[in-house]
Amino acid sequence: MDPAKLLDILGNENRRKIIQLLANRPCYVSEISGRLGVGPKAIISHLNLLEQAGLIEYSVDEQRRKYFNIANNMRLEVSVSPYSYTVTLQDIALDREIIGESYVAEKKEATAIEESSFFFLKLSSRLHELEKRQEEIAQMQKHLQVEYIEMMNLCMDSIEEIAKNPVECELLFELLKSETTLATLCYSLRLHPSIINANLIDLAERGFIEYSIKNNQHYWRLCETGAENK
Amino acid sequence: MDPAKLLDILGNENRRKIIQLLANRPCYVSEISGRLGVGPKAIISHLNLLEQAGLIEYSVDEQRRKYFNIANNMRLEVSVSPYSYTVTLQDIALDREIIGESYVAEKKEATAIEESSFFFLKLSSRLHELEKRQEEIAQMQKHLQVEYIEMMNLCMDSIEEIAKNPVECELLFELLKSETTLATLCYSLRLHPSIINANLIDLAERGFIEYSIKNNQHYWRLCETGAENK
Repeated sequence: MDPAKLLDILGNENRRKIIQLLANRPCYVSEISGRLGVGPKAIISHLNLLEQAGLIEYSVDEQRRKYFNIANNMRLEVSVSPYSYTVTLQDIALDREIIGESYVAEKKEATAIEESSFFFLKLSSRLHELEKRQEEIAQMQKHLQVEYIEMMNLCMDSIEEIAKNPVECELLFELLKSETTLATLCYSLRLHPSIINANLIDLAERGFIEYSIKNNQHYWRLCETGAENK
Repeated sequence: MDPAKLLDILGNENRRKIIQLLANRPCYVSEISGRLGVGPKAIISHLNLLEQAGLIEYSVDEQRRKYFNIANNMRLEVSVSPYSYTVTLQDIALDREIIGESYVAEKKEATAIEESSFFFLKLSSRLHELEKRQEEIAQMQKHLQVEYIEMMNLCMDSIEEIAKNPVECELLFELLKSETTLATLCYSLRLHPSIINANLIDLAERGFIEYSIKNNQHYWRLCETGAENK
């Protein structure tokens, strides 16, 4: 799924509530309508939208009622800072054949030795271990992001110290984010190539930047420290 | 910020484009309007909304132009699966005094020994190391989520095997997610307390669940495996 599409979907409070309900268990239209206090017509139009996006699907029971459920496993991450805006969406395919294999093997053994009921309790405690590890990783990620932003701040201070003019400032900032071409720099800074080029050459002479040629294009990047130390 | 508020904001394509522009560098209204091909009136109303939410702020230059920039560091995570819907928002406070300290100390040394220009290149290569670590952690997180979903699937299969009726199925599923009270179970399953209670007692007698008392309330939970193994 396109991350923009998912953000559009999540931008509506009632759609978020529907997803939350369905993540708890499959529901039919009048059930959702009752829980949310929203008319069935509006619920149906939200459900259609969610279904078209592939986020939900339905099955029909004996009474011909449509039960809707979440059809997908995905994880969306949006990070906003003064220096960056990134949106990533991971679609997590369910390939139980591969990952579940060891447990299935273990299970066959388990049913032989102990009751299958205790196998369930074993699985549930493993599930909670995984939850703990997920929390730990989320913490690591948070610390890393703080460190990243702090480092970015130091870089910005440092750029202001070494740049001779505002154009150099902007060029160093762009190159700090990633290596790039003259054309891209002209587009993002909205400056004439001659101005950008003159500044790039000056920065290169002072040992800050260098270029490499890929696919017949010059890519400018910051120098590696090791090579530049006198 | 309330995560729902941020999702409302990000649910609009033009607002996402504005955030993307400002994350690249501060801009003024006519600049944003020109880049997006959207009238200044609409841009101003989006900017007001973003400002009220605390996501952006502005400074005024000599020509009295308002320059808008991102005011915040945040990370939003939305995870959707057939078993769960979670939204978390981390506001990352910038406390450069604390984390930047070691680098500032190092910098004073650095300026003495080597030129401050090389200090910048050093910072930038550390920044890229941090980026690599961020990618590694994102990968770990992805693997963990796959494992979690697989484990959840195995748990669901196992629940279907051991449950005597659909109510037990639902109860075990609820308790798999977290420990909970009779009242909460009645609310989420929409069943009469007497039915829920009878099933809880039966499950407890079969060694699947147990309760503890906290704040004068009975909390039901799945048994730990160790204690239950015969």
